[in-house]
Amino acid sequence: MSVASAPSARTRVVREPHRGVYDREAAYKILDEGFICHVGFVLDGQPFVIPTSYGRREGTLYIHGSAASRMLRNASAGIPICVTVTLLDGLVLARSVFNHSMNYRSVVVLGTATAVEDREEKLRALNVISDHILPGRWNDARQPTEQELKATTVIRLPINEFSAKVRTGPPIDDEEDYNFRVWAGVLPLDFVPGDAISDSRLLEGMQVPEYVTHYSRQKRSS
Amino acid sequence: MSVASAPSARTRVVREPHRGVYDREAAYKILDEGFICHVGFVLDGQPFVIPTSYGRREGTLYIHGSAASRMLRNASAGIPICVTVTLLDGLVLARSVFNHSMNYRSVVVLGTATAVEDREEKLRALNVISDHILPGRWNDARQPTEQELKATTVIRLPINEFSAKVRTGPPIDDEEDYNFRVWAGVLPLDFVPGDAISDSRLLEGMQVPEYVTHYSRQKRSS
Repeated sequence: MSVASAPSARTRVVREPHRGVYDREAAYKILDEGFICHVGFVLDGQPFVIPTSYGRREGTLYIHGSAASRMLRNASAGIPICVTVTLLDGLVLARSVFNHSMNYRSVVVLGTATAVEDREEKLRALNVISDHILPGRWNDARQPTEQELKATTVIRLPINEFSAKVRTGPPIDDEEDYNFRVWAGVLPLDFVPGDAISDSRLLEGMQVPEYVTHYSRQKRSS
Repeated sequence: MSVASAPSARTRVVREPHRGVYDREAAYKILDEGFICHVGFVLDGQPFVIPTSYGRREGTLYIHGSAASRMLRNASAGIPICVTVTLLDGLVLARSVFNHSMNYRSVVVLGTATAVEDREEKLRALNVISDHILPGRWNDARQPTEQELKATTVIRLPINEFSAKVRTGPPIDDEEDYNFRVWAGVLPLDFVPGDAISDSRLLEGMQVPEYVTHYSRQKRSS
């Protein structure tokens, strides 16, 4: 596994470079807290961006299915993609319109995506994605059949060329604006689970599992 | 304003076509509830996907700043981009691993992005983006100076070629799996505000505005 903590020219944060983070562990923490990525790929010069689920195993991202079906058509040798994960933490309300911002953490990974063809690796990759979204679920659910495995596309992307961008904390206003008479501060935003909704065809005696009632993304990244 | 409710070959939903939505009002509702988009663009054959804020005014998306700075360099005539907005509504837990899914609403808009150069349009576009994120804030905050306006990049994208994809409701299992002994259902997820954090340098008497204490994305789209 190559360790490329220095940014390439392509991943260097150009705007607001003080927000750039190139540390692998910091990027992993963000990748591990999110579970929806936006995958970018190019067809006939046109970029496409598709949301999909993913998981990480060491230095590899595994990306699930439907986004891959269009992009990997005729591209078994791999195609250049960009995977971006964004966690939004709050609205930052400054005194001036210009200094308004958001608190967020995001990771951009560039590289060549290839399809996972090997049966064992695909099964393991699906397990990684499932554990990433909802730890504990994989072992409870009915396991994939050979036909289902074949019908599922999984792609892999090595996490070699990447950068993260993080903004935290209060608004930063121009010094002369601190006397402007307006409220300023941060409105935190969080992604939280509601009460689980049992399926109408549930068998008698099936309780909501603890991994559902205690679901939290923050705990995942600790 | 052209009305293209029929999908082009490029925006037709290929995977799970029953989830495809091509109605303009349905797409607008999703675009109006979100406020972070992922913008895809191509440089030297490599796709990039950058999160940024946006707003909509009738059939035009206005996209804010920092993402644009890299993509619009040397491209004043416009470049092909893809803007994707994804709202995640819940985890869908089926009996089988294979039928696990997510409830979500997403919109993909393809087109040519151009920079907003005209001063009045740029000011209005920034107002649109601000009102989109936090209605009421623009009028309270210190307005942009000419220098700040010049330092801000805004791009526009006509909403002509687009599609939306929506999944709602309970898990759909294979008929024979309904006897598999596992809990199944939906874990709803929601993006909710916490308590506002006042800036440490707040002037005396500045109260948290009502548009902050009553912030809700859902209300925005009604």
